[in-house]
Amino acid sequence: MRRPIITLTTDFGISDWFVGTMKGVMAGIARHAQIIDITHAVPPGNIRAGAFALRSACRYFPKGTIHVAVVDPGVGSHRRALAVRTRNSTYVGPDNGILSWALALEEVLAVHSLDLSQYFLPQVSRTFHGRDVFAPVAAHLANGLPVEKLGWKLTNYVRLPWPEPEQRDSGIVGEVVYIDHFGNAITNLDTASLAEATAGKQVEVLLGRRRVGPLSSCYASVPKGKSTAVLGSSGFLEIAVNGGNAARALRIEVGTVVTARSPRPQKPSN
Amino acid sequence: MRRPIITLTTDFGISDWFVGTMKGVMAGIARHAQIIDITHAVPPGNIRAGAFALRSACRYFPKGTIHVAVVDPGVGSHRRALAVRTRNSTYVGPDNGILSWALALEEVLAVHSLDLSQYFLPQVSRTFHGRDVFAPVAAHLANGLPVEKLGWKLTNYVRLPWPEPEQRDSGIVGEVVYIDHFGNAITNLDTASLAEATAGKQVEVLLGRRRVGPLSSCYASVPKGKSTAVLGSSGFLEIAVNGGNAARALRIEVGTVVTARSPRPQKPSN
Amino acid sequence: MRRPIITLTTDFGISDWFVGTMKGVMAGIARHAQIIDITHAVPPGNIRAGAFALRSACRYFPKGTIHVAVVDPGVGSHRRALAVRTRNSTYVGPDNGILSWALALEEVLAVHSLDLSQYFLPQVSRTFHGRDVFAPVAAHLANGLPVEKLGWKLTNYVRLPWPEPEQRDSGIVGEVVYIDHFGNAITNLDTASLAEATAGKQVEVLLGRRRVGPLSSCYASVPKGKSTAVLGSSGFLEIAVNGGNAARALRIEVGTVVTARSPRPQKPSN
Repeated sequence: MRRPIITLTTDFGISDWFVGTMKGVMAGIARHAQIIDITHAVPPGNIRAGAFALRSACRYFPKGTIHVAVVDPGVGSHRRALAVRTRNSTYVGPDNGILSWALALEEVLAVHSLDLSQYFLPQVSRTFHGRDVFAPVAAHLANGLPVEKLGWKLTNYVRLPWPEPEQRDSGIVGEVVYIDHFGNAITNLDTASLAEATAGKQVEVLLGRRRVGPLSSCYASVPKGKSTAVLGSSGFLEIAVNGGNAARALRIEVGTVVTARSPRPQKPSN
Repeated sequence: MRRPIITLTTDFGISDWFVGTMKGVMAGIARHAQIIDITHAVPPGNIRAGAFALRSACRYFPKGTIHVAVVDPGVGSHRRALAVRTRNSTYVGPDNGILSWALALEEVLAVHSLDLSQYFLPQVSRTFHGRDVFAPVAAHLANGLPVEKLGWKLTNYVRLPWPEPEQRDSGIVGEVVYIDHFGNAITNLDTASLAEATAGKQVEVLLGRRRVGPLSSCYASVPKGKSTAVLGSSGFLEIAVNGGNAARALRIEVGTVVTARSPRPQKPSN
Repeated sequence: MRRPIITLTTDFGISDWFVGTMKGVMAGIARHAQIIDITHAVPPGNIRAGAFALRSACRYFPKGTIHVAVVDPGVGSHRRALAVRTRNSTYVGPDNGILSWALALEEVLAVHSLDLSQYFLPQVSRTFHGRDVFAPVAAHLANGLPVEKLGWKLTNYVRLPWPEPEQRDSGIVGEVVYIDHFGNAITNLDTASLAEATAGKQVEVLLGRRRVGPLSSCYASVPKGKSTAVLGSSGFLEIAVNGGNAARALRIEVGTVVTARSPRPQKPSN
């Protein structure tokens, strides 16, 4: 049998024993599972950042992967917990939207709440469901348990709103949704929207009112230290500085407005 | 055969090649072992922080796990190195107390020093026994070598003192022993001591002389930004700020005094 | 069959989904491979730091290991990508020098460029060849594909110059090449050069013109807080502070000049 894969996306950090402990629990139930960290550095409680990381990674995992995402500021309160079966994968996490951007890319087949404590650790704390609920549930799923056995069938789940770009006279207007380790600013302007908005014409990119430059094919297309816009690896327009940190250099934050438009015609010189 | 599990708890950080190199050495000797990181972010040389991490994680691993802990400021000097077999697990590390809080939770069956260099790498450096001694020894243990083969039987090992909480007139008085990634301050006031001290009555928690609040069931029991005390996932009272960083907001450090007591009666209002 | 090992050395950091995504891609092609992180904390774009990490770790991995190193500021431009078979291992990465210090320790048998897109992901982005090119190529190699199938045979590859220490009247003069997590400063003065230069005599070490002290056998040979020089675990002279951070305390940077010499005779006291 092929080893099942379980991925982890959390805000637990890696300075404490939290992630290791989850892996210990999973190894105790499903020794043969292969556990892959997506990230544990989601900013504490930042559900949107966690949802974006999971959404960006999930489609690169093989069919049958079990994705566990735990950014869970409401742990121990009355928020629900979910297991979701899709055509390709299974998702496990709190019902606070953390799974929703990944699920929007998938064909959802069944949504169940996690009700049956027989699949949890014998003692469930009020502060660490990653260890006591989500890790053992994921390991039981890796052992072949169907999501249907975990609890009630649900007809809905919490969905985070996605900030859709808008077509305006000034161009197509979006915003920065994520800033990565390199300081690259990933926007919500996806390749399809851009292509439609610009109809194959040249594109220039603005940050607020400041011109970042034309669309380049790669970071190294502009001289070192210069800003540029590229079609990034997550399928979105991304603002970068060649060899530098764009977020720091250009003071970009999540939410900063970004516009893509056809370059304005130069004034005729005669 | 089930794959043996080896865990790692170190202060090596993850910015260099140290941890990866230990894993390379172990894979060369015991390819089938599964290696799980507990943490590599123990503050450099902080034996107590490492001991607390190992103690908090170890009981969540399956029977037969081999725990390696290397926080080793005396590496290369005359400090001893240990392998300890308990009813459930095996522990490997320097004899400086790093293993002792975990061992206090276990039934210790045999303690041996690491003397036989045939189980080390052929060349042993004076500065990196994680790679040259502890990794190969752990891998040999994963291959089935009994701890008795590693060196002399010992009758004792270094134990870190545990700061016991004290029952005073003012209540039960303890201290902060660990601050986690979220800024939650974990104390030495364990659930049993608290239950005994308060005899089922209501509890209020003080930080020095400042009232933190009553015991809550979870972080989200208080409004965002408010401090609270909860029974944390490690079995100890823990001070937190809902959606915030308690250590930073309340200026808590390891060693800060924490008191739990029955709330003082209000002055009668007539 | 023994599980093949793939190592990863990158500057991708661990805060985003980049490394996890590479592992998902590899698991989809070679489920049985064991993936070991060397480090993902190479400073962004710092090819020399990545090359030094890979060089320091590679010889501790078993024969047959596939080493992937991606510090790739030129991603998407016309830089070549390589697969290199040596007597012991296989190396994969961009042709910018990142592999060259490891290769200098190995017997190189075949160097090929990565040309055949059938071994890449179906869609190759211009910004993330770690995921789209290097991960799938490494996984195909783990499945037994020979490097010869990947592309053209090459007769050369980019080699980073290694800063050789110089023998001068003042002693043997080198420089700091890497500063580790503990603040230890690793120099280019290797054990052999030192032995030759000092001919078994006592050695004292200077940082610029400041005396660091004699060569010690381990960090704990000097009192806490004192600086010392030791023969470190990578085979180079290393400057450390017992229980402290030498780089911070002594203001050492990569490139700082270090001299080892026989101690100057004391002035006769009569």
